[in-house]
Amino acid sequence: MADLDPILNDIDADLDNALERLFTFLRIPSISTDPAFATHCREAAAWLEGTLTALGFETTVEETSLHPVVLASAPKPGTPHLLFYGHYDVQPVDPLDQWETPPFEPRIATDANGAKRIVGRGASDDKGQVMTFIEACRAWKAMAGELPCGVTILIEGAEENGSQGLPEWVAANRDRLGADIVLVCDTSMWNPSTPAITTSLRGLAYFEVKVTCASRDLHSGFFGGAARNPIHVLSKIIADLHDAEGRVTLPGFYEGVREPPEDLLAQWRGLDLSAEKFLGPIGLKEPAGERGRMIIEQVQSRPACDVNGIIGGYTGEGTKTVIASTASAKVSFRLVDDQDPQVLARTFEAFVRERVPADCKVEVITYKGSRAIALPFDMPELAIAKGALAEEWGVPPVTVGAGGSIPIVGDFKRLLDRNTLLIGFGLDDDRIHAPNEKYELASFHKGTRSWARILAAFGAAGKL
Amino acid sequence: MADLDPILNDIDADLDNALERLFTFLRIPSISTDPAFATHCREAAAWLEGTLTALGFETTVEETSLHPVVLASAPKPGTPHLLFYGHYDVQPVDPLDQWETPPFEPRIATDANGAKRIVGRGASDDKGQVMTFIEACRAWKAMAGELPCGVTILIEGAEENGSQGLPEWVAANRDRLGADIVLVCDTSMWNPSTPAITTSLRGLAYFEVKVTCASRDLHSGFFGGAARNPIHVLSKIIADLHDAEGRVTLPGFYEGVREPPEDLLAQWRGLDLSAEKFLGPIGLKEPAGERGRMIIEQVQSRPACDVNGIIGGYTGEGTKTVIASTASAKVSFRLVDDQDPQVLARTFEAFVRERVPADCKVEVITYKGSRAIALPFDMPELAIAKGALAEEWGVPPVTVGAGGSIPIVGDFKRLLDRNTLLIGFGLDDDRIHAPNEKYELASFHKGTRSWARILAAFGAAGKL
Repeated sequence: MADLDPILNDIDADLDNALERLFTFLRIPSISTDPAFATHCREAAAWLEGTLTALGFETTVEETSLHPVVLASAPKPGTPHLLFYGHYDVQPVDPLDQWETPPFEPRIATDANGAKRIVGRGASDDKGQVMTFIEACRAWKAMAGELPCGVTILIEGAEENGSQGLPEWVAANRDRLGADIVLVCDTSMWNPSTPAITTSLRGLAYFEVKVTCASRDLHSGFFGGAARNPIHVLSKIIADLHDAEGRVTLPGFYEGVREPPEDLLAQWRGLDLSAEKFLGPIGLKEPAGERGRMIIEQVQSRPACDVNGIIGGYTGEGTKTVIASTASAKVSFRLVDDQDPQVLARTFEAFVRERVPADCKVEVITYKGSRAIALPFDMPELAIAKGALAEEWGVPPVTVGAGGSIPIVGDFKRLLDRNTLLIGFGLDDDRIHAPNEKYELASFHKGTRSWARILAAFGAAGKL
Repeated sequence: MADLDPILNDIDADLDNALERLFTFLRIPSISTDPAFATHCREAAAWLEGTLTALGFETTVEETSLHPVVLASAPKPGTPHLLFYGHYDVQPVDPLDQWETPPFEPRIATDANGAKRIVGRGASDDKGQVMTFIEACRAWKAMAGELPCGVTILIEGAEENGSQGLPEWVAANRDRLGADIVLVCDTSMWNPSTPAITTSLRGLAYFEVKVTCASRDLHSGFFGGAARNPIHVLSKIIADLHDAEGRVTLPGFYEGVREPPEDLLAQWRGLDLSAEKFLGPIGLKEPAGERGRMIIEQVQSRPACDVNGIIGGYTGEGTKTVIASTASAKVSFRLVDDQDPQVLARTFEAFVRERVPADCKVEVITYKGSRAIALPFDMPELAIAKGALAEEWGVPPVTVGAGGSIPIVGDFKRLLDRNTLLIGFGLDDDRIHAPNEKYELASFHKGTRSWARILAAFGAAGKL
């Protein structure tokens, strides 16, 4: 692809200006969950509108039930059409006193090894990542006069608030979102020198279990030994959820769970991701999941169950001889492949009720559920993106599963019937959602170059 | 005992005046745990000093490390000497808005059945109970000119604050507390028409277990399935503490636990205390303790283990996909017979540590421990008190164990080598420590008569 060189050179030469543009974007405190910042969300949308219009996109800012979305379109008949999704909103900044510099005054810092990084709220999640794509479009436009393929850009403003309003907006605007594939830049690389494409996302089923025994709190001296203790009941339920091999014991839980294809397993084995390497940074050594599974399987291709919270009885300082009336726990499941959160909800509730004595009560609240999402491994778009990333980074990207859920990806599948390629340049230590959020300058620079190459590759591929 | 009639008649005739005296005592807000009420504690001690001096006791108010004790003595050589213990301090009154009338403005209320009750903080715990003994002494003094046996009265002011300072004071004043037996009026009757003598108190061992896995809270999407969850670890420990028969599984836990004597078991069987009767008022039906044991055994003669509190992870409204770094639980054991809290502390800690994975940490805090206390069933003082109570109530008193602990009783045994007879006229529904505390007028009236009879019986018994 000889015509790509001037574009990549332009990206290199224009890096300081690109940073200035990103800094302008980062200075807008577009916190979506706090109504006090609503006008700043609108300001961020307006800034994007101006930026994308200047790049030749037909751009509009459109209302949703919360903050507006920015929709920018540049079709190119006869080429593949890409729908890029990102978000302009950011997380709240508290605890503010833990920031080394003000969160909305972005700066370049240099780490101990001399590497430069962009510090500020949104640097990584997601303004910095969004701008890698927009800057790639800018370079193409500047040097080639047009993009090599059709592009629609959709940037929302409520991702950190559960994408409130977005699915409804997408459903109502299906015909304006026609594309061959969705691209999302909101995930991480495998490590600082190895890119990654996230090809699967685990689903989620989340419950709260509240056990009530006696009608009031009891004195454990008077009643201890005779009265049922809801903390005991709840602990038994939780203990029963896993067997000694680390497997979830719910009947039928593993139905619909498939083994990853052998080539993916081979790739994972080649990664040599030991438990020490994965768990060491968080102070652990021994994997807690299913015996006989690689750690990458445990967090990506296997389902899991975690109690996310528990409370009951006296939890203050010192002692109180009480038998609580109630105790409750939040229990969630990460789902893979064809596991159905609705089936799980029934199985889980039955499992819980079986373990609650007849004279006690239990309430099981089902909070939310989403199925797992998996990209077909044989789709041509995946091969195209892999090839482009390999050229930029000198190593092929790792295709990984993400342990968490990004529900909008499911919405794109459901509402637009389109798959999503999750390609991001963040790193696990970017401190997203935390003080002193950062994005490596290399992520920003090579991320932009990566998108320029991906656009080129899709353009060269012709109509898919 | 022909000479008892005028004394009992005097108690009947003087009831209104006795109530007035009790009300004066109840109006003093002698809350021991709140330093703001320290002068009122001193005021209560001074009121007792005046009252007991007027009754002919040699009375002093003596300092301890917290609130003063009142010591009143009236020896009578050649007769048994009784040491009566009670407390003038009361519990805090919050939540104040749940009191129907101000807690320190005592009043007589009439229940649905026409029975009268004394309402106010301390009515039952312990001012009302203390005054049954003092009023009995007053009637003896008024009608017979002197008490029928030697009496020392020790009223402390920090019982609701863990008897702070009392053991040290008792240890330092051993020679002034010589007595044949200790009497305590701070327990309940079997039911409104059946008195009870508490002949055993379970001991207590109290621990906190804090499990730490990862060095920080984790996202359950990213780490779920691989990272150890401290709530799972803690739940397994708690679940493992009991077997399917309701027995505690700690190695050696039941060593030192004896079967009650056959005559006590026979008496308990005769009580016909069904699980429904005992658990019904708290909304339960099925006893949770050891299979094959009467409910009265479960709460009195058998040890027990209860988790008094547990906390970990996200416990607010809604959901958070977190794997907590730490989780903790408060775990206590009720001990009987020769179970040793120090041995238990070692066994429990080993049991916990065995169940914590090698890469996690656990802290076991030992809060406090007291051995169980049991009165010898063949001691003559028990027979004397039983006889006197049977005369007053028309039915023999039930000898019961108390599920809870009263550590000062252990101190009397340890420091004075004296046994304690726990004889009280409270009822289980007296709402001690709660708003609208009450004491039945019948408890106050017949309690006073009971003590008059007990004093007579000890006097008649001659030197023990």
